[in-house]
Amino acid sequence: MSTGYHVFGVQGVPLVQPGDDLAALITEAMSRNGQTLENGDCLCLAQKIVSKAEGRQVPLAAVTPSPEAIALANETDKDPRLVELILSESTEMLRKKPGVLIMRHRLGLVGAHAGIDQSNIVHGEGEEALLLPKDPDASAATIRNTLRDRLGIDVGVIITDSANRPWRLGTIGIAIGAAGLTVLDDHRGGVDMFGRELKVTLINRADAIASAAILVMGETTERLPVAVVRGLPLTVGEAGDQTAALIIRPLEEDLFR
Amino acid sequence: MSTGYHVFGVQGVPLVQPGDDLAALITEAMSRNGQTLENGDCLCLAQKIVSKAEGRQVPLAAVTPSPEAIALANETDKDPRLVELILSESTEMLRKKPGVLIMRHRLGLVGAHAGIDQSNIVHGEGEEALLLPKDPDASAATIRNTLRDRLGIDVGVIITDSANRPWRLGTIGIAIGAAGLTVLDDHRGGVDMFGRELKVTLINRADAIASAAILVMGETTERLPVAVVRGLPLTVGEAGDQTAALIIRPLEEDLFR
Repeated sequence: MSTGYHVFGVQGVPLVQPGDDLAALITEAMSRNGQTLENGDCLCLAQKIVSKAEGRQVPLAAVTPSPEAIALANETDKDPRLVELILSESTEMLRKKPGVLIMRHRLGLVGAHAGIDQSNIVHGEGEEALLLPKDPDASAATIRNTLRDRLGIDVGVIITDSANRPWRLGTIGIAIGAAGLTVLDDHRGGVDMFGRELKVTLINRADAIASAAILVMGETTERLPVAVVRGLPLTVGEAGDQTAALIIRPLEEDLFR
Repeated sequence: MSTGYHVFGVQGVPLVQPGDDLAALITEAMSRNGQTLENGDCLCLAQKIVSKAEGRQVPLAAVTPSPEAIALANETDKDPRLVELILSESTEMLRKKPGVLIMRHRLGLVGAHAGIDQSNIVHGEGEEALLLPKDPDASAATIRNTLRDRLGIDVGVIITDSANRPWRLGTIGIAIGAAGLTVLDDHRGGVDMFGRELKVTLINRADAIASAAILVMGETTERLPVAVVRGLPLTVGEAGDQTAALIIRPLEEDLFR
């Protein structure tokens, strides 16, 4: 039973450019800080730096909005080129009103703007937007494998994002990519401490770890896009390693489309 | 800037009975464990022990279901007495289907069964159900004030619960009561690190802390209903202390009723 863990940020990770080797940038920053990544750590990376490293920055000047995007942009008071990107990244629009566009991203994530954001990116000649990584679970696995190959250590990796929720104010951390850890801890079919059957206890560890990490990562100007969670068991129960894709509730169970 | 914090569980908190003094039970257990509560700690308590201490356990045999509750129980395959309790604790039904009843609790919390649960409570002669605390923010404030009066220390207190979300599987921790900390960290109107205006960055620290705590508290048989989060600033920005009631999204902003 875990009785304690530690969460700390990694200072001094440089601004990330397309093509950067994130595993190297992080371990080099940690080394400068006198920090060492250890076996069993869970390394949490903000989605923004993964997207930047993977070249997911799009200049809006290069986007030609469709008539559908232009109409929707008018309805929602948004830039038609941004709306074009949002539509191209999404499979479904759930809600719209002026200033608000709630989409289902092709990865299954539901939220504002299909995860596209325009903060904390360097805007060159014009406006730019940053898309989510193409396959965040694969991004997490690549970083995990790179660290294993180079350092001989086994770590969990989570790509975190900030998410809003329909009935609660304020963003929390969520895991949009994961490798090397149990994402959903399944107690369904187990019993509680008085022997009563537990009917609905499926615990989302990856989102909880992402939220724990975001408390030190900062979301504005803190320049701390990486955090380490140390002392939590990476895998629990019989599930072993899982991906963040498992978190997406199947469409047929969705009561709030 | 915080670069690290620690989360640990408090072992040996005894089974809680109605009328119990939670602050005393927790500090006594910590003392037996060689642990000490410190100034600036955030003490996280599972809703269940707060409800139990406040006598919110209801024997189903004492509940007479209304015709409305009986009809809804038939539709949803539930015990009519449990449905009667759910209705009496709620202000609105959002969704129903066999096995599922999504309600808006009178506190504004949206979730299954109006927060009522039947696990990890001692069932006496018959079935029992445990309601949420009457006023979890007041419960948190009482515990905080008690600890300040007795020990001369200032701690944050969060009453945690497990919550499901519409589009993501697996429960995460949420704060249903809070005292002595900044719950919502408001960066709206600020700028990102390249000077761009941040439009929607309101960070829910209390829910993130609750999620961090739940990673050590366990939700099944672990008997760890209390965790301490140490090393995070309790108050940030200009907001000062806030309550968990602030988290509830106003009805007029709700796009998913």
